[in-house]
Amino acid sequence: MSELYNKGKNANKIKFQVQKLSTNQKNSVLLKVAENLIKNSNYILKSNSIDIHEARKQGLKDSLLDRLLLTEDRISSMASGLTKIASLNDPIGEVLFMKQRPNGLRIGKKRVPIGVIGIIYESRPNVTIDAFGLCFKAGNAVILRGGKEAINSNIALMNIVQNSLEEMNLPIEIAQIVEDTSRESAYELMKMNEFLDVLIPRGGAELIKSVVENSTVPVIETGIGNCHIYVDKTADFDMAMKIVENAKTSRTGVCNACEKLLVHQDIAQEFLPVMLERLKLKNVEIRADLTTKTIYGNVTIADESDWHTEYLDLIIGVKVVKDINEAIDHITTYGTGHSEAIITEDYTNAERFLNEVDAAAVYVNASTRFTDGEEFGFGAEIGISTQKLHARGPMGLEELTSTKYVIYGNGQIR
Amino acid sequence: MSELYNKGKNANKIKFQVQKLSTNQKNSVLLKVAENLIKNSNYILKSNSIDIHEARKQGLKDSLLDRLLLTEDRISSMASGLTKIASLNDPIGEVLFMKQRPNGLRIGKKRVPIGVIGIIYESRPNVTIDAFGLCFKAGNAVILRGGKEAINSNIALMNIVQNSLEEMNLPIEIAQIVEDTSRESAYELMKMNEFLDVLIPRGGAELIKSVVENSTVPVIETGIGNCHIYVDKTADFDMAMKIVENAKTSRTGVCNACEKLLVHQDIAQEFLPVMLERLKLKNVEIRADLTTKTIYGNVTIADESDWHTEYLDLIIGVKVVKDINEAIDHITTYGTGHSEAIITEDYTNAERFLNEVDAAAVYVNASTRFTDGEEFGFGAEIGISTQKLHARGPMGLEELTSTKYVIYGNGQIR
Repeated sequence: MSELYNKGKNANKIKFQVQKLSTNQKNSVLLKVAENLIKNSNYILKSNSIDIHEARKQGLKDSLLDRLLLTEDRISSMASGLTKIASLNDPIGEVLFMKQRPNGLRIGKKRVPIGVIGIIYESRPNVTIDAFGLCFKAGNAVILRGGKEAINSNIALMNIVQNSLEEMNLPIEIAQIVEDTSRESAYELMKMNEFLDVLIPRGGAELIKSVVENSTVPVIETGIGNCHIYVDKTADFDMAMKIVENAKTSRTGVCNACEKLLVHQDIAQEFLPVMLERLKLKNVEIRADLTTKTIYGNVTIADESDWHTEYLDLIIGVKVVKDINEAIDHITTYGTGHSEAIITEDYTNAERFLNEVDAAAVYVNASTRFTDGEEFGFGAEIGISTQKLHARGPMGLEELTSTKYVIYGNGQIR
Repeated sequence: MSELYNKGKNANKIKFQVQKLSTNQKNSVLLKVAENLIKNSNYILKSNSIDIHEARKQGLKDSLLDRLLLTEDRISSMASGLTKIASLNDPIGEVLFMKQRPNGLRIGKKRVPIGVIGIIYESRPNVTIDAFGLCFKAGNAVILRGGKEAINSNIALMNIVQNSLEEMNLPIEIAQIVEDTSRESAYELMKMNEFLDVLIPRGGAELIKSVVENSTVPVIETGIGNCHIYVDKTADFDMAMKIVENAKTSRTGVCNACEKLLVHQDIAQEFLPVMLERLKLKNVEIRADLTTKTIYGNVTIADESDWHTEYLDLIIGVKVVKDINEAIDHITTYGTGHSEAIITEDYTNAERFLNEVDAAAVYVNASTRFTDGEEFGFGAEIGISTQKLHARGPMGLEELTSTKYVIYGNGQIR
């Protein structure tokens, strides 16, 4: 039997033990792991340096090296992440409703863990700790399969988690890392319906696409964000400029960053030159339609592929539209269902945009950058779902749970 | 382009029109279709008779012929099903919560349609009307792919639906039937991620397995029910017998019927002879473990495959267990996560069973037969989910919806 088969089988075997843990027990584990991460930071940094050394030899890009790198600071931020998770409300056991039927049956809908959660991710070792913390707090066992670049860091982190579980007399199979980082092990995970209740990919577009296309285990698709801001005819210019600048430049590599700017034709002449000048000062490259070029001059003309692209970089696509209809149509055609915003003072247009734009989060007069578990008040997030089943938008602890019906009778038959 | 590709594309194109319909508009359509079903019952019966004729020629079993058969009564029950759906609350637009964040952002979570729903089913033509009614009331477009045996009936029913939509000046692509009933068209539907938001299989174990294994479109798995009743040491015998008899014999071909009886060893000697005699009087075949045979005598010995089987017939598997632990272990090993019941007067055992049995619906002192959308008070159901994501247990209108976050700002940036 393969490594993965055994890990799946073992996780499945002990999942009911996780489900029975009290909130206090779970919080103690989280705090213990946090403590042990700090205590063992030398061991973690040493393991990480092997990965970094290897990655340099392979000639990995600086941005990838940075994702892979662990520091004292990053370790303590993983630890404080766990402390934060310990402080969050435990979703398990919540009764969503309980009602009495005419025949006297009392039917309750209760929040329960999902069971065994698989996470496939890339080179960020902090995902190992974050994902464990969230899945575990929600009463689940977890199987983590990170990228091969981070394998030594991930094994070190998982050793600390498993030692902490052992210290608390709990089965180490609550959290497991897949040591075989071959492509085959990823595919095996995607087909492990027997043991896995859900698979969550965290990473770039390629990874997510591959999981969606190949997995027979139910998937929660996360995070491609080709996010638009539409500046309507009645927009407050000052507000619009602040929001666009913020959404484009405050952090570029994130899925809630603004990638496209749509501007109503009646204000384009006045709005665009100032707006684009401001973006250029922030080193944003502008790829625009012909009308924008006519108005503003010095920009690259966008091609069809630009309208589809999530740049994750200091680049923005700009287009002048006839009206809100064209804006909504454009977003429907090119959007990825992540976060979309309108800047307007017009009541009817604000409501139309909220109703008719089909995305996880739709904004009036605010930056798309708020689509985030912390910002939404969930305390933490495992990712942002852009699919429509089970969870849509930022996923906190509740989204890592299922429900069951509990029915109290006194002899009812049908 | 294939028939299916065009239908998918067209459904996707008009899905926003369905989402914008008011509750009144949707109810008018449902009532219009109900009216037109009755008006055109001759046409429906004539089309159905072609399917029946063909099925007889192919030598289909009587039980299958009965599923396929339409009568005046069955047509009027389809029509009254739609009237019922029209009377249910519209889930769309409900705001699940709306909260104000410290920065003044107001974040609301709102119920919205899923989009385009695909249904794959077998030979019951009434599914065509039921599934259309429920998906449409929840604001979705629907693509229906029934079995080849029912194709003439299904086309007739869909003509009536589409004519009704036309009468109300709505796009007929709101509901479409797949006319190509080849195996290839089913596979094409399972891979149509571009246009389809979810695929729901309704039918037997084979069909569901094939959809789960092959679909890249998100699936909601429905209904295999290898349901157990565990009669605990402290059970009220009279209640236990009534419930077991009801759950096994009131209707055998349904997924919430009892398939297995587990009995505590301390009461087996007294309970089983009376219980099994009662089941035999109802023509139930008994397949039992050795202990039961020793106590009761004349029964077939069950083999390993019996414990896994959903009989859907007048057959029951019977096993004597040491205690509640063995009962829960047995259910964990062989159950399908549908409906499980304990009959007990013991408080602690009742609570343990409710907490530790991992199924969509867990009962104390009631028949498993209540796992049903109507019985749960949902008014109607599209199926019973045995998976843990998105929906678990009977799925009513709410389970055919998604959510979106609507965010009201006044210039917030991050």
